[in-house]
Amino acid sequence: MNAERIAALLSDVAAGRVSVSEAMEHLAQLPFVAGAEVIADTHRHLRTGEAEAVFCAGKTPAQAATAFAALAEGGEGPILATRAEAAHRSAIAQTVPGVVLHEVARMAVLPGTRREDSHVCVVCAGTSDLPVAEEAAVTAEALGMTVTRLRDVGVAGLHRLLAHLPLLRRVDCVVAVAGMEGALPSVLAGLVTCPVIAVPTSIGYGAAFGGLAPLLAMLNSCAPGVAVVNIDNGFGAAVVSGRLARRLQFRLAER
Amino acid sequence: MNAERIAALLSDVAAGRVSVSEAMEHLAQLPFVAGAEVIADTHRHLRTGEAEAVFCAGKTPAQAATAFAALAEGGEGPILATRAEAAHRSAIAQTVPGVVLHEVARMAVLPGTRREDSHVCVVCAGTSDLPVAEEAAVTAEALGMTVTRLRDVGVAGLHRLLAHLPLLRRVDCVVAVAGMEGALPSVLAGLVTCPVIAVPTSIGYGAAFGGLAPLLAMLNSCAPGVAVVNIDNGFGAAVVSGRLARRLQFRLAER
Amino acid sequence: MNAERIAALLSDVAAGRVSVSEAMEHLAQLPFVAGAEVIADTHRHLRTGEAEAVFCAGKTPAQAATAFAALAEGGEGPILATRAEAAHRSAIAQTVPGVVLHEVARMAVLPGTRREDSHVCVVCAGTSDLPVAEEAAVTAEALGMTVTRLRDVGVAGLHRLLAHLPLLRRVDCVVAVAGMEGALPSVLAGLVTCPVIAVPTSIGYGAAFGGLAPLLAMLNSCAPGVAVVNIDNGFGAAVVSGRLARRLQFRLAER
Amino acid sequence: MNAERIAALLSDVAAGRVSVSEAMEHLAQLPFVAGAEVIADTHRHLRTGEAEAVFCAGKTPAQAATAFAALAEGGEGPILATRAEAAHRSAIAQTVPGVVLHEVARMAVLPGTRREDSHVCVVCAGTSDLPVAEEAAVTAEALGMTVTRLRDVGVAGLHRLLAHLPLLRRVDCVVAVAGMEGALPSVLAGLVTCPVIAVPTSIGYGAAFGGLAPLLAMLNSCAPGVAVVNIDNGFGAAVVSGRLARRLQFRLAER
Amino acid sequence: MNAERIAALLSDVAAGRVSVSEAMEHLAQLPFVAGAEVIADTHRHLRTGEAEAVFCAGKTPAQAATAFAALAEGGEGPILATRAEAAHRSAIAQTVPGVVLHEVARMAVLPGTRREDSHVCVVCAGTSDLPVAEEAAVTAEALGMTVTRLRDVGVAGLHRLLAHLPLLRRVDCVVAVAGMEGALPSVLAGLVTCPVIAVPTSIGYGAAFGGLAPLLAMLNSCAPGVAVVNIDNGFGAAVVSGRLARRLQFRLAER
Amino acid sequence: MNAERIAALLSDVAAGRVSVSEAMEHLAQLPFVAGAEVIADTHRHLRTGEAEAVFCAGKTPAQAATAFAALAEGGEGPILATRAEAAHRSAIAQTVPGVVLHEVARMAVLPGTRREDSHVCVVCAGTSDLPVAEEAAVTAEALGMTVTRLRDVGVAGLHRLLAHLPLLRRVDCVVAVAGMEGALPSVLAGLVTCPVIAVPTSIGYGAAFGGLAPLLAMLNSCAPGVAVVNIDNGFGAAVVSGRLARRLQFRLAER
Amino acid sequence: MNAERIAALLSDVAAGRVSVSEAMEHLAQLPFVAGAEVIADTHRHLRTGEAEAVFCAGKTPAQAATAFAALAEGGEGPILATRAEAAHRSAIAQTVPGVVLHEVARMAVLPGTRREDSHVCVVCAGTSDLPVAEEAAVTAEALGMTVTRLRDVGVAGLHRLLAHLPLLRRVDCVVAVAGMEGALPSVLAGLVTCPVIAVPTSIGYGAAFGGLAPLLAMLNSCAPGVAVVNIDNGFGAAVVSGRLARRLQFRLAER
Amino acid sequence: MNAERIAALLSDVAAGRVSVSEAMEHLAQLPFVAGAEVIADTHRHLRTGEAEAVFCAGKTPAQAATAFAALAEGGEGPILATRAEAAHRSAIAQTVPGVVLHEVARMAVLPGTRREDSHVCVVCAGTSDLPVAEEAAVTAEALGMTVTRLRDVGVAGLHRLLAHLPLLRRVDCVVAVAGMEGALPSVLAGLVTCPVIAVPTSIGYGAAFGGLAPLLAMLNSCAPGVAVVNIDNGFGAAVVSGRLARRLQFRLAER
Repeated sequence: MNAERIAALLSDVAAGRVSVSEAMEHLAQLPFVAGAEVIADTHRHLRTGEAEAVFCAGKTPAQAATAFAALAEGGEGPILATRAEAAHRSAIAQTVPGVVLHEVARMAVLPGTRREDSHVCVVCAGTSDLPVAEEAAVTAEALGMTVTRLRDVGVAGLHRLLAHLPLLRRVDCVVAVAGMEGALPSVLAGLVTCPVIAVPTSIGYGAAFGGLAPLLAMLNSCAPGVAVVNIDNGFGAAVVSGRLARRLQFRLAER
Repeated sequence: MNAERIAALLSDVAAGRVSVSEAMEHLAQLPFVAGAEVIADTHRHLRTGEAEAVFCAGKTPAQAATAFAALAEGGEGPILATRAEAAHRSAIAQTVPGVVLHEVARMAVLPGTRREDSHVCVVCAGTSDLPVAEEAAVTAEALGMTVTRLRDVGVAGLHRLLAHLPLLRRVDCVVAVAGMEGALPSVLAGLVTCPVIAVPTSIGYGAAFGGLAPLLAMLNSCAPGVAVVNIDNGFGAAVVSGRLARRLQFRLAER
Repeated sequence: MNAERIAALLSDVAAGRVSVSEAMEHLAQLPFVAGAEVIADTHRHLRTGEAEAVFCAGKTPAQAATAFAALAEGGEGPILATRAEAAHRSAIAQTVPGVVLHEVARMAVLPGTRREDSHVCVVCAGTSDLPVAEEAAVTAEALGMTVTRLRDVGVAGLHRLLAHLPLLRRVDCVVAVAGMEGALPSVLAGLVTCPVIAVPTSIGYGAAFGGLAPLLAMLNSCAPGVAVVNIDNGFGAAVVSGRLARRLQFRLAER
Repeated sequence: MNAERIAALLSDVAAGRVSVSEAMEHLAQLPFVAGAEVIADTHRHLRTGEAEAVFCAGKTPAQAATAFAALAEGGEGPILATRAEAAHRSAIAQTVPGVVLHEVARMAVLPGTRREDSHVCVVCAGTSDLPVAEEAAVTAEALGMTVTRLRDVGVAGLHRLLAHLPLLRRVDCVVAVAGMEGALPSVLAGLVTCPVIAVPTSIGYGAAFGGLAPLLAMLNSCAPGVAVVNIDNGFGAAVVSGRLARRLQFRLAER
Repeated sequence: MNAERIAALLSDVAAGRVSVSEAMEHLAQLPFVAGAEVIADTHRHLRTGEAEAVFCAGKTPAQAATAFAALAEGGEGPILATRAEAAHRSAIAQTVPGVVLHEVARMAVLPGTRREDSHVCVVCAGTSDLPVAEEAAVTAEALGMTVTRLRDVGVAGLHRLLAHLPLLRRVDCVVAVAGMEGALPSVLAGLVTCPVIAVPTSIGYGAAFGGLAPLLAMLNSCAPGVAVVNIDNGFGAAVVSGRLARRLQFRLAER
Repeated sequence: MNAERIAALLSDVAAGRVSVSEAMEHLAQLPFVAGAEVIADTHRHLRTGEAEAVFCAGKTPAQAATAFAALAEGGEGPILATRAEAAHRSAIAQTVPGVVLHEVARMAVLPGTRREDSHVCVVCAGTSDLPVAEEAAVTAEALGMTVTRLRDVGVAGLHRLLAHLPLLRRVDCVVAVAGMEGALPSVLAGLVTCPVIAVPTSIGYGAAFGGLAPLLAMLNSCAPGVAVVNIDNGFGAAVVSGRLARRLQFRLAER
Repeated sequence: MNAERIAALLSDVAAGRVSVSEAMEHLAQLPFVAGAEVIADTHRHLRTGEAEAVFCAGKTPAQAATAFAALAEGGEGPILATRAEAAHRSAIAQTVPGVVLHEVARMAVLPGTRREDSHVCVVCAGTSDLPVAEEAAVTAEALGMTVTRLRDVGVAGLHRLLAHLPLLRRVDCVVAVAGMEGALPSVLAGLVTCPVIAVPTSIGYGAAFGGLAPLLAMLNSCAPGVAVVNIDNGFGAAVVSGRLARRLQFRLAER
Repeated sequence: MNAERIAALLSDVAAGRVSVSEAMEHLAQLPFVAGAEVIADTHRHLRTGEAEAVFCAGKTPAQAATAFAALAEGGEGPILATRAEAAHRSAIAQTVPGVVLHEVARMAVLPGTRREDSHVCVVCAGTSDLPVAEEAAVTAEALGMTVTRLRDVGVAGLHRLLAHLPLLRRVDCVVAVAGMEGALPSVLAGLVTCPVIAVPTSIGYGAAFGGLAPLLAMLNSCAPGVAVVNIDNGFGAAVVSGRLARRLQFRLAER
């Protein structure tokens, strides 16, 4: 219930077209009214292209496909399924037409139409980090951004990283994916001027403690400009970069 | 040493104006050359206004003032001192003219000149979180952004948060500062469309474990769009938002 | 051996119907007598309807069914089996007649007869939390309470929660089930006046650390009125709410 | 802005005493209106006697006194200050008349008028736990409940606990405060039928890890019926028991 | 109320000297009766010499002295005060005559009279562990045991340990006190045949994490025969060895 | 090479039956000689009945059987296999004659001949703790002790524990096995006078953190007289009680 | 591209054999040139024999074989595959001729030709630690070192360790592999004069917490001279000892 | 008692100069004989120059000075005091002549005479790490090595690190000191060929958790060749590098 509708209601009351008690009835769901803006916000979300995602881990393929289909009906995309094993992916593809499957990223994507004038670079060190990096890259592409992937640029071989410096200094956002000692975001944040969204991965063993080691390292980055998402959360990092892109778009459009 | 200078050098060699051994001499500092862009980057940093900061904790007032003065000589500001107790602040103010002191934020700031066309909102729940929130706000202002502060908008009283929704939906970045259960960024990320940079604080006791509780909560936000910095790191959150602002500026300037 | 039986025994001694040594013989199990009230308490438990439960995890279906049958013989219900996989459930159902099976809650229930004049609301955020929420709801129903279930009311979409405010402010107890950042109980405790029993779940990944994140968040709730049970312990939360209901019943009956 | 005031406003509109635009003006703060119920709730809180509390740790005596005075002006009490050292307590007492000081509980209380027909028993094991137990007891008394204190009833000397069994089985709620191994709530929950609110304390050393040991023990109670609050949070436990009392009151009043 | 008193009571009832209701009155405190043996046990404790101890940490000197005096009045010793700083010690010595002070062990002891035919060896590695080792040694002496102290026998210089092998193989119990890597108990348990009671200390820094490192090491001893007490709990280790001694005494006395 | 053999060798040298160089040859393995007492100790171990044990977890059945057979050849028993699954047990039984299998304890035992005049009571709370309790009980029996098992005596139903008090006060050692909140050893140590060896189990879920909760609880026992072994280490607890028994035997034999 | 090649290129430019633009083309990969020394370093690595390794965990056999083959093509060995299960090993052996398989070490090795005049001793306590110890030993052999393996020299039987003292004091480096309480490196560091590289293993259960216990113990070694690698990282320890060997070689060659 | 002395003893026995029982008497202290080599080893330690160190933390200045003096009497140096505050340092300097004080390193050193033909580079990132880095550098110098210090070479400014590459590739050992995210050793290990001894520092705040973050990062280094010592343990890292130097010396001397 927005301002115009309230004004109309008040006019009706003033004009005697609506009684006080009827008006009260309309306002009875005040909490809903209160939340109106918020509800609208959800719809706007879908319109602006923030990914609705089905987290498939712990769901049966059928459950995942059902959830995906429900989202696909309501909105215009992109719709994403993350942590989707082969069985989830094929179940979703069989249920919803137009879905694109990504094996390494373990994702199924129903593409949207929005495109952002924004460029994000997804960087990872080892091939073991690829599933998480791909989850970030595929999500970012689904959100409409231009994505460049850099692989095998771990800090143990700095020259490989330095070789890409010109590119890295040109993009709007860097998503840095790393397991083990998680040093990549610190090194990157000292080399670029855009925000670095760091994704620790659970790759490693022993004292990596399931990703705790790179998580702590990234939170303690000596180079400012780094912000961190949950372990293995490539999707989350891409959404942060997508919000950044959308804000950019909005501001550019204002001009 | 950039491409043009190398081409010129090679031409000189080809023309016999420079001997092979002289050319080798120039290239002798190849590692430096390799790092040249990086070094330049540091200077550009200063030019673009990313805060150089003196972390005062564990330093004597004299040490802090000396470090601050050194940075102030080299650059044009802003220069920041963080975690500066009263003694640090007065030592710095006595050493460097033009410094502005901030008691709650525990900071000393030598202002810079750059202004960003960017608006960041620093939100915190309790008055105990104010020092961290102020560190973020003062840093963001020093970086040239417009800052709005919202206080006392904890999740235990949602209506106070909802009252500021229109503002929150208008800014370019939200910095959400919270201790205890750290729920504020999750709630905010469901209400706004810009990135939410979350700062857990060490406020609390018992099972807060020095900020571990809100840190984990923020990393596990059910609402995507949240990225997290270190516990009590208001400065770091502001720098991330500043990189975002600078990127925005750069892209707007391209137009 | 209760007070009446002791009085009778003493009368028999006084009347010479029982010798002192015979009486001593009866009292030989003094530790049992000492514990008499406690033992009686156990029986009263069964009478008052506190659920006896078989925790099936780590038991074979046969073991679970045997344990369930033993409890079912001794008492009049409700008897509950929790963490019961399909095999456990069918083994129990084949062994004890009248058992009702609950797939999502992973439970088998032999209903009791007691009804409480008490209303509990079981709230959860995500569908992944449903098994824990259902364990709470089914247990609360077995204990005789009226149960309302609210799903999908996570803090990332506050309007969905606010829509149920009138209901939430009417019930005697709220059981709030949440994984990830576990913010739900804090938000709820600021909106209702009854106790909020919080159940962290192990839903999540990475820095959720098997439920540690929401557990810490709930213990640090900025809104007072929250008390917490073990991770995934829907059964335990329902029993706390059941004790509350029984106390209410007892006090209402006193009038 | 509550229902009556909205109805009055609508009547004024209907009667032409208030123009539509003026009414809109009143409703301009719609977000506030949206939150009206919530805001009202806060006021009701004060009326129903839930303690507003000033957490003094980390505040200067002057800050604590100012905060306390602000709350005291707005409401009718009880107003509580917790974690109040001697200096906090005397500053508060000098600022607000009628305040009662509690040394062991480290509290200052401006009493309210409401009385609950509810009886809570605060149990603790060692004298070291007394400050936390007293915080619970004083808070519960401030909330209007009848409070019985049991001390020195640790599980290392069970007979002392068993001696109080009749009392323990009669009260509406037990608040069990314990450090070290934190076994008291488990033992109690097997002996009583009302809810047991457990408060782990930071008393202990070494592997107590600042209260982690009793916290984990209480969360893993083998006896159902236990719910846990934060380490050393006597205030929080009392508020939970107070919500229970208020609910009881409300239901008794319905009769 | 023991068996004889119950028999006498029953005889009185049988003889008509006591009415049934009077007998019931006597038995009214059944929980006390139930706990009778336990209460007696406490007294027997004092008789058998298990130390009653005042833990001084967190107590004022006056509080410690009062508690100590109360114990000293009721029993015949030994009475111990542990973690007693200089102020605690002198307050206790001024309050209770006959108290012996131990500076390194941070203890005050009112000696008892019982002597055990038992020999315990308290072993520690570094001088930093001495306060904990002395707490164990002084407690064991207070409990009546013969105590031999071995210092500077860390595993980094095995020959020093091997030099004492004949002694170590002769005693009834070894108390092994160690911080840092806590390897001493494992090495000892492979060399002796009596139980090894291990005491981790908080000596160390960094990854010692306040005694966590030696605690975990001792719990994981590759040599069976080791049991562990809390970090820095020299008192507790001595009490365990004292129980062993008393059991030995009891069995030897049976012969 | 023991004292007698060295004396004989020296006599042979003195008598000219062995040359100095031959004697040197015999002593060539001086490090072994140096360790002679230790080596002898190992043999004495076998003679005195301390169990040699094969830890089967992580071994194939064949590997376990081979290791078991090797130990069985060298010594006279008891030889124990712990954590032996069905396949391990049958492989061992087929390889070594005379082995006794224990399903619940997951053990295979080649009995020894030594008997101790010592009585140990193995107490556990829940049926889930039985495998660990049985590991302790079977090991203690293999070491020659008389073992009484008490089950279902958790602290949630104290009367069951109190009923066994006379027995518990008569034994030489109590092994207390408990998961969840691990309160059993604290309660027991307040009721008996012999040492209580506490075994935390990994039984539980959520905040039990694989046995961390009862481990910490047991280390923080408010009742002195408790010493703790590793999580699930029933074998280790029994060996400690066995060392105690052997010491008792040795001292009784001295008389 | 090394110094000689750059000089040659410059000569060609000077001589007119190569045009400036062609030279620029060669230098086009300036970032690589910038990193030239680093790249050369990689090649030198291969020449000097530092193992390139394929970490097979989480890779399919085909992926592992492909990665191994790629490394084998580029360099002259040694090439190592670690954490290689049977399937990985046979896939690699079928793909690359000349590979040697190691079952216990779970490795596949393509031998190199370099030999170091260096002797490393790999020591472990239990047979369960053998896979990690073998990974260290096989890697060290592949790196060209002479390796002696000592097994079953745990601290619970010191004489076995002392028997090898002459050998241990002769080698250039000791790699000490231990799980459980991890005391071996501390004991060794007190007996030898060379560096001790400690490898904690995940062998153990309960409070071993996946290798945390020995890791902390080793970091807190009371004997200086110990440095630690990640849990189960036998490969890493061997590479450290290999760097030591190579440095030794280099310095010996200088003479 | 060494081989010669044993041979002489045997000859005496053979010649009748010593009786068998007298010889047995001499051999009675066999454990001492066993430990003879080890004892000698200690002396050799002093001779070879491994630092004996007094850890001053937790000691009074007088205690530290006494311990230092005792070591200084027995050996010829170097003798080191670490963690020595100003008071410790002056107390030591007043007690032992010839001591050199180091303020930043918090050390007092009595120099030794031995010099190693070895070069170690101590690298640190921030000025806050200087005390730990200086502890390493001063210790290494005391052990006779040539030491180069590199400061301010954090990974946030890679060019500063790359500038020192030629030096770093020339030394025998790198000691890398870093707090915060601890990325420095990983980066270094990818650039040099000698061993990298990593020292995490407790510098940082929040999620640095007292040095846990860099500790875990360093243990998980993606570049092999890194071994780690305890948090803040500059002394320990230097001793490891010293053992390496001594081994080098020994091998060079063999030539």
